[in-house]
Amino acid sequence: MLRYAVVGSGAVGGFYGVRLAAAGTPVQFLLRHEAEFVRGAGLRLTSPDGDILLPHVDVAASWDELRPCDVLVVAVKSTSNSAVHDSLLTHADRILGAGGTVLLAQNGIGAEAGYARASGDREVLGGLAFLCSQRRGPGWIDHLDYGSLTIAAHTRDEAPGGITPNMVAVADDLRAAGLEAILDEDLVLARWRKLLWNIPFNSLSVILDATTDQLMADPDTVELVRSLMHEVVAAAAAEGRRLPPGVVEQLLAATRAMRPYATSMKLDADAGRPLEVDSILAEPLRRAERAGCPMPGVDVLHRELAFVDHRIRAAEPGGHRPR
Amino acid sequence: MLRYAVVGSGAVGGFYGVRLAAAGTPVQFLLRHEAEFVRGAGLRLTSPDGDILLPHVDVAASWDELRPCDVLVVAVKSTSNSAVHDSLLTHADRILGAGGTVLLAQNGIGAEAGYARASGDREVLGGLAFLCSQRRGPGWIDHLDYGSLTIAAHTRDEAPGGITPNMVAVADDLRAAGLEAILDEDLVLARWRKLLWNIPFNSLSVILDATTDQLMADPDTVELVRSLMHEVVAAAAAEGRRLPPGVVEQLLAATRAMRPYATSMKLDADAGRPLEVDSILAEPLRRAERAGCPMPGVDVLHRELAFVDHRIRAAEPGGHRPR
Repeated sequence: MLRYAVVGSGAVGGFYGVRLAAAGTPVQFLLRHEAEFVRGAGLRLTSPDGDILLPHVDVAASWDELRPCDVLVVAVKSTSNSAVHDSLLTHADRILGAGGTVLLAQNGIGAEAGYARASGDREVLGGLAFLCSQRRGPGWIDHLDYGSLTIAAHTRDEAPGGITPNMVAVADDLRAAGLEAILDEDLVLARWRKLLWNIPFNSLSVILDATTDQLMADPDTVELVRSLMHEVVAAAAAEGRRLPPGVVEQLLAATRAMRPYATSMKLDADAGRPLEVDSILAEPLRRAERAGCPMPGVDVLHRELAFVDHRIRAAEPGGHRPR
Repeated sequence: MLRYAVVGSGAVGGFYGVRLAAAGTPVQFLLRHEAEFVRGAGLRLTSPDGDILLPHVDVAASWDELRPCDVLVVAVKSTSNSAVHDSLLTHADRILGAGGTVLLAQNGIGAEAGYARASGDREVLGGLAFLCSQRRGPGWIDHLDYGSLTIAAHTRDEAPGGITPNMVAVADDLRAAGLEAILDEDLVLARWRKLLWNIPFNSLSVILDATTDQLMADPDTVELVRSLMHEVVAAAAAEGRRLPPGVVEQLLAATRAMRPYATSMKLDADAGRPLEVDSILAEPLRRAERAGCPMPGVDVLHRELAFVDHRIRAAEPGGHRPR
């Protein structure tokens, strides 16, 4: 059993952290505004799999208060990466031993490289959460559906990194907590596979202010999603990552079968939070461009979302989505 | 001086109709819900060029009440074209003499052919309004800016139709009413030139709920507009219509200099009216596809707008924009 510390205890980090801690795994939670609240009231996870209340939570109110651990789970929005890099540069040697690892549970592609640099070239694992959850209030995460975590190792040249001992150990801990863990030998392939869903659905859910079921109920948006997905498949192939034939239709069918779902980006937009435009749209576009396989439809989504994001950032902090 | 009848006395038809009538030109107005109101209260045009009240308006409350005229000005939204075609099939011979003409003042491209058929192959002119105006209430049109009308003749094979006697006569009447009239020999070229603005700005103003100045203030939407405009220029060229080099940058500069402006499609969306998706997006896309020059960015806008349009049509009639 490894020792964990969770940076970013929102919908994703909070879910995995609480589930691990409830199974007896040692987990520190780095909290800022909510540190005092959680020290008093604990963390709560409501879920169709059963509600969990953790009355006694190992809270760190700052990076200085974090004690050494084996796995630093970073589950912040990609919009906060540079701030976390700064803290990690200062604290990695103290918090993470020589064999310690950073597990980046985040959407997008390519962010592991920055964490490898910031952590002094320690092992960085990418975590891809297939999870529908939402932060409801202080110390309260509401789990709606799914919950598996795919884990793959970052390598400097982005070649498939295989299965590392830390990956196996983390998967064991997740499974001991009743969660599904999938180990993948190729991080970049896994990230493109997730982008295949995130690029069309996160973007259109914000641009059209729609849930997944609404997008799947309209033949025009289904056709648009299909066309965008084919652009992503082609870009991934240009980067040498071949997604299996039929993946687009399988993903459309799976999404049609999902319950009505507001994407994480729509939750961000509705709450007036900055959008993960760079990690989910701009970086894939840069990669596709470099690989000689531009994505013209994705480029339109990117510009549209950038406009929405700029409007959100220009509005009052914490306000609701400006229109 | 020709005799006019205006079908569709909204922001466009109402503006030109009132201006012509105020200059002493004979103008009938076909009104439905507002017929009684306007018979009592007249038509009002508020404008920076001076307000006009027409106390006595020649109102027809139905097609049956329309008397013969020389020019039937059709200024309905393209979403009402098929309904107008039906009426025209019945009434064209009675209302329009052998030399009578239909002037279609509408956005989009290609709708003149349907009016040629519906009017028994009479002359059909396309009218392209460069006008910022808005219907404010019963019998009240508010003119905000601009006001010129470009007129060009429809031909069966879409070859340039030259300048016809009716075009000259209509232009004379408009000029006598103090308006700018521009005669164009090539309707298809004129329509593509207008689409160059309407496709990006009408679409993005609805999709992003933004005015023109907001779109021009953000580098991402400016770049998106530029890229969409280049797609339109290429599609027009594939149809043999060459827009002058530099037209994109000129149009961007002109739009940057405009006062803040909600496009007609945004006004439609905000009022819960159906959107002109087919005439402004789908028909240009079909033409580009046929000409072997697809417009991938415009295709994204089309699917997005179709989704918004379907949501509007599914909502309560007369309601505000559903979200």
